[in-house]
Amino acid sequence: MIILGIDPGTAITGYGVLEFKGNSYKPVDYNCLRTGPELSLDLRLKNLYQEINRIIAKYQPQYMAVEELFFNKNVRTALAVGHARGIALLAGANAGIPVAEYTPLQVKQAVTGYGKADKQQVQFMVKTLLSLPEVPKPDDVADALAVAICHAHWSSSPGGFLR
Amino acid sequence: MIILGIDPGTAITGYGVLEFKGNSYKPVDYNCLRTGPELSLDLRLKNLYQEINRIIAKYQPQYMAVEELFFNKNVRTALAVGHARGIALLAGANAGIPVAEYTPLQVKQAVTGYGKADKQQVQFMVKTLLSLPEVPKPDDVADALAVAICHAHWSSSPGGFLR
Repeated sequence: MIILGIDPGTAITGYGVLEFKGNSYKPVDYNCLRTGPELSLDLRLKNLYQEINRIIAKYQPQYMAVEELFFNKNVRTALAVGHARGIALLAGANAGIPVAEYTPLQVKQAVTGYGKADKQQVQFMVKTLLSLPEVPKPDDVADALAVAICHAHWSSSPGGFLR
Repeated sequence: MIILGIDPGTAITGYGVLEFKGNSYKPVDYNCLRTGPELSLDLRLKNLYQEINRIIAKYQPQYMAVEELFFNKNVRTALAVGHARGIALLAGANAGIPVAEYTPLQVKQAVTGYGKADKQQVQFMVKTLLSLPEVPKPDDVADALAVAICHAHWSSSPGGFLR
C-alpha cells in the first residue's frame, strides 16, 4: 500500500510517500512544500492545496496520515497549523482517501517502540527504518515520514485501526 | 458591491451576504452551515468547502471578509477554528475573490463605533443597520454579518483598505 504522511504548516508542510509491502517500507518521495511569505494567507493556502493535490495525483496513495497537534503549542501556532491542516484533510477527503489522525504518542510508539521518545530518536529511527543515507531535513519532512510509518504500523497490527 | 462575511467553525460556520450600495446595506442571505458530528473531520471539512463554494457560486461576491481569531481562546478551539478558517480562505482564493481579515476591534469599531463594545451591542447594531426583524441566531450568523458590514465600512472609508 502507498501511504502519504503529512506534517502541515502554513510556511512549510512536510510530506512523505511510503510504500509498505509485506513488512518493509520503501520511501517513494519525501520533501517539503513551501509557500511564499510574500503572499497573503488565502493565496498561500491555495498554493498548498494545489501542491498536495499534485502529490496525490502523482502517487495515488491509498491512505493519508496526519499527526494530531501537540497541545503544548500556543494559540497563534495552533491557528496557523489548523489552517494548513484543514487544507491537507480537505485534499484527502476530496480525493476519496481515508485520512487517519495519530497522536504524537502513537507516532513515537510506532516508530521507536517508546511513546516518550525524543525528536532525535524518532529521526534516527525514520532514517534506519527507511534505509536513508541521512535524516531528512527540515524536521517537517522527517515528521511526515514518521506519521506515515505510524500508519503502516498500526494498520498492520493485530487490533490496528483504520478509519 | 456584494460582500460575503464568514464566521468559521468546524461544527457551525455562520455566513452573511450583504449588498452595499451608496451608503446602505441590504442583507441578501444569512444563515449557518452545519456539518454532521457523525462524520470524520476530513469529511466535515469537505462538506463545509462544498457549501461555501455553493454560496460563492450563487451570490458571486466581489469580496470575502473573515474575522481574525480572539487570542483568548484555548489551543484546542484555535486548532478547530483554524481548520474551518483555512477552508473558507481556500474557497475565496480558489474563486479569485480578495479575502480581507479584520480584528475583533476593527469589527466592533465599524459596527458600533466603539472597539470595546460587547456582543449584545454588536448584535443590536447588526439588526439595526440591516433593518432585520430580530437578531440573527445563532451568534455565528450575526458575527458573519458584522464582519461583512465591517468590510463595507473600511473599504468605503477614506484611508480604508482592501487588500
